[in-house]
Amino acid sequence: MKLLEDIIANEGRVYPGEVLKVDSFLNHQIDVSLMDRLADEFYEKFKDREITKILTIEASGIPIACSVARLFEVPLVFAKKTASLNIGDDVYVTRISSYTHKIDYDATVVRDYLTSDDMVLLIDDFMAIGNAMKGLIEICDQAGAQIAGIGICIEKGFQPGGEDLRKMGYDVLSLAIIDSMSEDGKFTFRKTEG
Amino acid sequence: MKLLEDIIANEGRVYPGEVLKVDSFLNHQIDVSLMDRLADEFYEKFKDREITKILTIEASGIPIACSVARLFEVPLVFAKKTASLNIGDDVYVTRISSYTHKIDYDATVVRDYLTSDDMVLLIDDFMAIGNAMKGLIEICDQAGAQIAGIGICIEKGFQPGGEDLRKMGYDVLSLAIIDSMSEDGKFTFRKTEG
Repeated sequence: MKLLEDIIANEGRVYPGEVLKVDSFLNHQIDVSLMDRLADEFYEKFKDREITKILTIEASGIPIACSVARLFEVPLVFAKKTASLNIGDDVYVTRISSYTHKIDYDATVVRDYLTSDDMVLLIDDFMAIGNAMKGLIEICDQAGAQIAGIGICIEKGFQPGGEDLRKMGYDVLSLAIIDSMSEDGKFTFRKTEG
Repeated sequence: MKLLEDIIANEGRVYPGEVLKVDSFLNHQIDVSLMDRLADEFYEKFKDREITKILTIEASGIPIACSVARLFEVPLVFAKKTASLNIGDDVYVTRISSYTHKIDYDATVVRDYLTSDDMVLLIDDFMAIGNAMKGLIEICDQAGAQIAGIGICIEKGFQPGGEDLRKMGYDVLSLAIIDSMSEDGKFTFRKTEG
């Protein structure tokens, strides 16, 4: 999606260790009108899949997921990141390793809010290794919910998350896929559908 | 606000220790169309205050804050909860004690996204003791930003947060104020503006 690629090229900052900061518009300060325009792309692709629920993970997946849920007119559920203590048996739980933060955490969803009747669209702001998204898939599997597709705002195409998920058979729409980036601000984007 | 009070009365569950669960529509599963209707109330009250930024704290403040930021057509910034390690000098930071989770954490906002030019509307889904909101006020003070007002979806009126903030001189709009609640599902609401 040209609009998003242009914003990444203008506002993204690359730090040592292939760290990309996009916190001026995507995951700390949020441009809500941009989220709505990105959500239009996900809606256009997945609108005929009889989606019943949008699932994301806190915190930075929530803004884009809100915009998507508004278009589909279905509830949004966000998985919670929790310490492992005090998790009851009323939740689905999966362990996720954070590439960004170098820690493991549990992600939980209360069973009432995801069931085998659900057709789920998974949404997140960012994908690199893909561990968070694989955690959400595991939660859907525990619920017996079907996965209609996966929508990602920015995918680091030089890391394996996107390829892993496509090989697993999931229909993944990433609105911008970065194939390479450098600390002097040069980005190469893969051609995408959006 | 009658609509919100009715939903709380129908869907809220009260647990021992005056714990109120509203995770079916407000802070785990999200009814985005309801968020938009609540946001209308905040907009109606604060629309003439020349708001430049909406500030909330992750994670459950984000959905309502997104809906509010859309109406004001200004950026949303959400404070991040972090472990105390590795906080650089490019952020404002304040320590917050969580009543719900019985832990302390640091909340941070990158300095670039909040300045002395900002007129801020503080938004959160829930207020009890008010420690999170007081932390956001502290961050605004560090930035030299002005606070136009505070919008809360649900206030526990029998806990001191709301009264503390009103005594401090802030213009607080809570859309539902619970004056009492019981485990058999009886709620008493205070009359509110919304």
